[in-house]
Amino acid sequence: LTYGHELWGHDRKDKIPDTSASAVSDVWCCPPAFPVVCTVRCQKFLISRVGEDWIFLILLGLVMALVSWVVDFCIAICLQAQKWMYGGLDSNVFLQYLAWVTYPVVLITFSAGFTQILAPQAVGSGIPEMKTILRGVVLKEYLTFKTFVAKVIGLTCALGSGMPLGKEGPFVHIASLCAALLSKFMSLFGGIYEVSHLNIEMLAAACAVGVGCCFAAPIGGVLFSIEVTSTFFAVRNYWRGFFAATFSAFIFRVLAVWNKDEETITALFKTRFRLDFPFDLQELPAFAVIGIASGFGGALFVYLNRLIVQFIRKQKAINRFLMKKRLLYPALVTLLISTLTFPPGFGQFMAGKLTQKESLVTLLDNRTWAKQGIAEEFDYIGNSQAWKHPQVNVFVTLVLFIVMKFWMSALATTIPVPCGAFMPVFVIGAAFGRLVGESMAAWFPDGIHSDGTIYSIVPGGYAVVGAAALSGAVTHTVSTAVIVFELTGQISHILPVMIAVILANAVAQSLQPSLYDSIIRIKKLPYLPELGWGHHEKYNIRVEDIMVRDVRYITLNCCYRDLHNVLLTGHLKTLALVESAESMILLGSIERAQLQSLLSQQLGRPRRMEYIKERAVAEKKRLSVVSSLGSEDGGHRASQEVRFQVRGQRPFFVGESLVNSENLCDLQIAEWEEKQLDEQVNFNNCKIDPAPFQLVERTSLHKHECECLTVVFKMHTWHEINLRPTLLLGNRQEHY
Amino acid sequence: LTYGHELWGHDRKDKIPDTSASAVSDVWCCPPAFPVVCTVRCQKFLISRVGEDWIFLILLGLVMALVSWVVDFCIAICLQAQKWMYGGLDSNVFLQYLAWVTYPVVLITFSAGFTQILAPQAVGSGIPEMKTILRGVVLKEYLTFKTFVAKVIGLTCALGSGMPLGKEGPFVHIASLCAALLSKFMSLFGGIYEVSHLNIEMLAAACAVGVGCCFAAPIGGVLFSIEVTSTFFAVRNYWRGFFAATFSAFIFRVLAVWNKDEETITALFKTRFRLDFPFDLQELPAFAVIGIASGFGGALFVYLNRLIVQFIRKQKAINRFLMKKRLLYPALVTLLISTLTFPPGFGQFMAGKLTQKESLVTLLDNRTWAKQGIAEEFDYIGNSQAWKHPQVNVFVTLVLFIVMKFWMSALATTIPVPCGAFMPVFVIGAAFGRLVGESMAAWFPDGIHSDGTIYSIVPGGYAVVGAAALSGAVTHTVSTAVIVFELTGQISHILPVMIAVILANAVAQSLQPSLYDSIIRIKKLPYLPELGWGHHEKYNIRVEDIMVRDVRYITLNCCYRDLHNVLLTGHLKTLALVESAESMILLGSIERAQLQSLLSQQLGRPRRMEYIKERAVAEKKRLSVVSSLGSEDGGHRASQEVRFQVRGQRPFFVGESLVNSENLCDLQIAEWEEKQLDEQVNFNNCKIDPAPFQLVERTSLHKHECECLTVVFKMHTWHEINLRPTLLLGNRQEHY
Repeated sequence: LTYGHELWGHDRKDKIPDTSASAVSDVWCCPPAFPVVCTVRCQKFLISRVGEDWIFLILLGLVMALVSWVVDFCIAICLQAQKWMYGGLDSNVFLQYLAWVTYPVVLITFSAGFTQILAPQAVGSGIPEMKTILRGVVLKEYLTFKTFVAKVIGLTCALGSGMPLGKEGPFVHIASLCAALLSKFMSLFGGIYEVSHLNIEMLAAACAVGVGCCFAAPIGGVLFSIEVTSTFFAVRNYWRGFFAATFSAFIFRVLAVWNKDEETITALFKTRFRLDFPFDLQELPAFAVIGIASGFGGALFVYLNRLIVQFIRKQKAINRFLMKKRLLYPALVTLLISTLTFPPGFGQFMAGKLTQKESLVTLLDNRTWAKQGIAEEFDYIGNSQAWKHPQVNVFVTLVLFIVMKFWMSALATTIPVPCGAFMPVFVIGAAFGRLVGESMAAWFPDGIHSDGTIYSIVPGGYAVVGAAALSGAVTHTVSTAVIVFELTGQISHILPVMIAVILANAVAQSLQPSLYDSIIRIKKLPYLPELGWGHHEKYNIRVEDIMVRDVRYITLNCCYRDLHNVLLTGHLKTLALVESAESMILLGSIERAQLQSLLSQQLGRPRRMEYIKERAVAEKKRLSVVSSLGSEDGGHRASQEVRFQVRGQRPFFVGESLVNSENLCDLQIAEWEEKQLDEQVNFNNCKIDPAPFQLVERTSLHKHECECLTVVFKMHTWHEINLRPTLLLGNRQEHY
Repeated sequence: LTYGHELWGHDRKDKIPDTSASAVSDVWCCPPAFPVVCTVRCQKFLISRVGEDWIFLILLGLVMALVSWVVDFCIAICLQAQKWMYGGLDSNVFLQYLAWVTYPVVLITFSAGFTQILAPQAVGSGIPEMKTILRGVVLKEYLTFKTFVAKVIGLTCALGSGMPLGKEGPFVHIASLCAALLSKFMSLFGGIYEVSHLNIEMLAAACAVGVGCCFAAPIGGVLFSIEVTSTFFAVRNYWRGFFAATFSAFIFRVLAVWNKDEETITALFKTRFRLDFPFDLQELPAFAVIGIASGFGGALFVYLNRLIVQFIRKQKAINRFLMKKRLLYPALVTLLISTLTFPPGFGQFMAGKLTQKESLVTLLDNRTWAKQGIAEEFDYIGNSQAWKHPQVNVFVTLVLFIVMKFWMSALATTIPVPCGAFMPVFVIGAAFGRLVGESMAAWFPDGIHSDGTIYSIVPGGYAVVGAAALSGAVTHTVSTAVIVFELTGQISHILPVMIAVILANAVAQSLQPSLYDSIIRIKKLPYLPELGWGHHEKYNIRVEDIMVRDVRYITLNCCYRDLHNVLLTGHLKTLALVESAESMILLGSIERAQLQSLLSQQLGRPRRMEYIKERAVAEKKRLSVVSSLGSEDGGHRASQEVRFQVRGQRPFFVGESLVNSENLCDLQIAEWEEKQLDEQVNFNNCKIDPAPFQLVERTSLHKHECECLTVVFKMHTWHEINLRPTLLLGNRQEHY
């Protein structure tokens, strides 16, 4: 009998005032009163200042630099504590082993447990999720404060354990979280943060900040984040990433200077290679070999990583056991890895006592370790000593390091803690490059150059090339080259690095997906394959192949009853508006709340009151003829009336209505409502979001990739709406 | 009376064979014979090898490296020749002046004349045109062999004259020309070169190659070309640019090694700054000042350049005079500039005898010129001596150099020869940076650093920062930072450079368009403004604001007469096909040739012959009753018949037709044709290019910039087609 209660009663209070028609016209047409003008102006001024994106970007850069620095600081303390414990117990090897092993196991278990309890979304690198989010898919809970806390604390503990894990991927996620939270906070001031697709641009900038403040590599950060997260990139947003990442890297390094770690702003892993003759032309084949081998190595790493995950999933017995005791798997893996790296044990053959940072510094050293390929002539200084073993050649140490770290890293990145794989892969690549470089130095002790002057080979340069090539192969990016230059502060090896990275990419891309795409597949995230190099078969996908044909829509000439039915049956936040059911031309989309407002206007209190008044006049005339009847059902009528009243509404005509409503029976109201519902909807005051464009059914996705791909991903986000000849598309807003 | 002759008669010969219906079915349906299969397979194999884009990219890189090196070599010879002439005449200042002035005037005049005669499109930088072409607009004659020759030779002469001109912009154009010619050549093998939008991707890669092989800066080249030419960039194509630019830069530098210019592959303008303490934190404000000042300077440069062009255009007397004597303007400008740089004259106060390359090398020198700000303590080595003047302080020389070169460069780039403005601006920026650096060194002779150790200030580092900032401001790009690192081979100043470049961009972008956009506006190239930073007012542009409403279209149920009328009245290469005139739903586009083929099928010889045969049978029956009549108009009929015959066509039924046609009069044929024209068109065998999507009239261009912008540019290329509720769009192919 009564319409609308079940439908919009619950959110009527805050969203649709009863006087919505006048409210709308207030906003759109009527000049507001003077104090309103004042506050609006003030707000506008605030928006024009606070709402500007560069303030947002500066804040983001500042916060992320602080986070990065604090995380680094905590990790350093954790690692120092482990070294101190291990060093203090050198009288007893067993106790030493216990200390060496217990410490990481406890930290990793805590990290896994903490993340599991607080926000399981924080597990892993976060780049695959960001890649998905930046395509317009809304992954719930991925950008919340809880996730932020879980990710930061979980990451600090995980890296503090000394496992072969990286902070780069998680930092991309943390920066995005930070941006999302910051934009939520700043949306209090209005401004651009209200526009959702600008938020996505902000997220893209945040990804750049993540890499930038992690490695103090602003340019590499921007490029890496573009390559990893985007398919199509708006050059217009370029500056955002650069601005935020540069600011962030600057603050990050200034903090190091402030903490007296550094004298001035320099690169994170500064190298001191020869500038005047960095490498000989004849060394280029060796660099190319590093590139190709890294390509195969990178593909193998991705494959191995996936294999481990799939193996554990398939073995149902293991899986069930691990699902019950969720913290057992991290603990076991950590135990295994830390046992193998125990310095007095097997670790002595693979420089086990070095932390990741220390190994990288030693690997990038510009001195040659094995001048004649014999361990005796090793040049031992500081941490480099770890690579020395009295019985074993330095080449054996390097090979063991590479092989062990390779599977260890692939295994460690499957632990359910916030962790990335970039840094471990980077170190392995550097070790591989060093191996080749040392071999070259051993084979050509006087350098390759033929003209008089002796330019000995710089194995550190090979390490740089190897690091860039392997990390490029695993992530399928070219910008690792730039990251390497910024990390080492030297660009002298640009051509070898570029050649190796390109070759590594060519090999790796033809063998395996990138690590992030592989994780996307494993996690089954909603993500369409790219129409890339060697994927020509996908060019035949047409719009009709992926669109869903059963879509709710309203027509321009529909009546309120249709509106009501659509609202009753569907749950979409936005509905398609078409010209007519025959032409099916998309005009735009209307938000559910707007439609509810239309309905409530039609059936709402003011109009009902008006009707009641009219009726009352007619009734009075009738009453003047016929004496009053049916006062016994007045109570019932009153309760009916109450059901129609909206909470928090000013009782305009209470006196009259209570008097008059008594004169109306239920049946009459229902009749009136039925009549109202049959009227045609007037969309004039309705905010219609105009349709961006319409995709014709038979369009090939190949033809207009740029447009279609964005569209396709939007369709994914919007329940794939399709109408007969054309295809409806919404905007980028959250539609679920 | 007779239809179609005027319409498609002229291109019928080569385009539409009379048996087009069967020809079409041959291609689309019938299995070809065995030898055909063989050749097709061979061709496919060739395509799979030769058609692969990496071969194309390697060839492109190789050719461009060779071109770049040869151009550089010729320029060096030209400049040496001028120096030799000038040096040999040092007994007589007047003769010296004549030699100094005549040489560039002759070269520039030749360059201007040669370009004017061979290909006027080769004038200028070429980046604005490439920007337009990459948006899908077809600029005729911009990518032809003639233009290539004119550009290369014109550029060599222009730069050989020693005027403040650059080779970077023209090299972007030359690389694109090279790519277009190469792809034309390789399309003989089929493969990807047949797909037009892949060609655009190749052009984008070519732009990267252009910058890459000009400065031996592959990464900077890729980024610069993206920033300068693209609005939306497909990350998928990233590798193409990197691959080609790296290969090109590699070959370019290998050629230098081969020519014994260098010992190994190093940076083009290698610097030797201190690595361990490149700059102090307290120097950062000075770098920021350079950035902001460069921003204003860059905007001023763009404004000045535009002002000069507009001044010359507006002064009608000058304009008319110059239009008549086209070579006078270049000659006059060259005379003015070379007179002012004459070393014994005013040139002595502005290091006039140094070439652009030499000045840059001296400006980037890591030694401090003015240790106490006094000219006496100047450290003179080699070319740096040019900056010394016995009477004048080095600061005055620098200021004069900056001021004079500033307007000279702005003036010189308006000369109608192939030339860019990047390098001159780069040098001015370096000089400005040097000025600030030398001032800092004079103010803080012991460096700023407070802790014990003295780190003196490196003015060369300031020069690097200034160069990046000013060129970034003029071009509105951030990637000049990367170019600077690659050019100097040092990345130690990354943070100052990034800060200065970002500040310079922020200032310049808010004041003026980029130099390339400014030229686009001056030249009135078909290009829409970008919806960028600070252009929010353009967010209100709706599709309906820019679309043209009067558009020719054909409907699915139209008859041949409509087709005929459309073909007669319009000149579009492609026509829109809509469902019906009422719904106006866009189905796709059909090429004019296809429609002509449809019409010719309907009215063509085979069908006519059939009809004639049928008529003949009927006629014979009639003739058996009535005796023959009207043999006098047989001659006329025959001539009529000839008009229908198509040249080069095999006379299938000549015998019959000549016999039978005599039995038909003009009127009957006309009648038949009229009947044929009233039939409904059958689009079944027609190749319809399906519509990518439809833009709804009231869509804001802000909302879906990515999609809309591409669309908008496409509309520009396709005569802005619009139908009532929806907007038709074609694909990227050439539509004119």
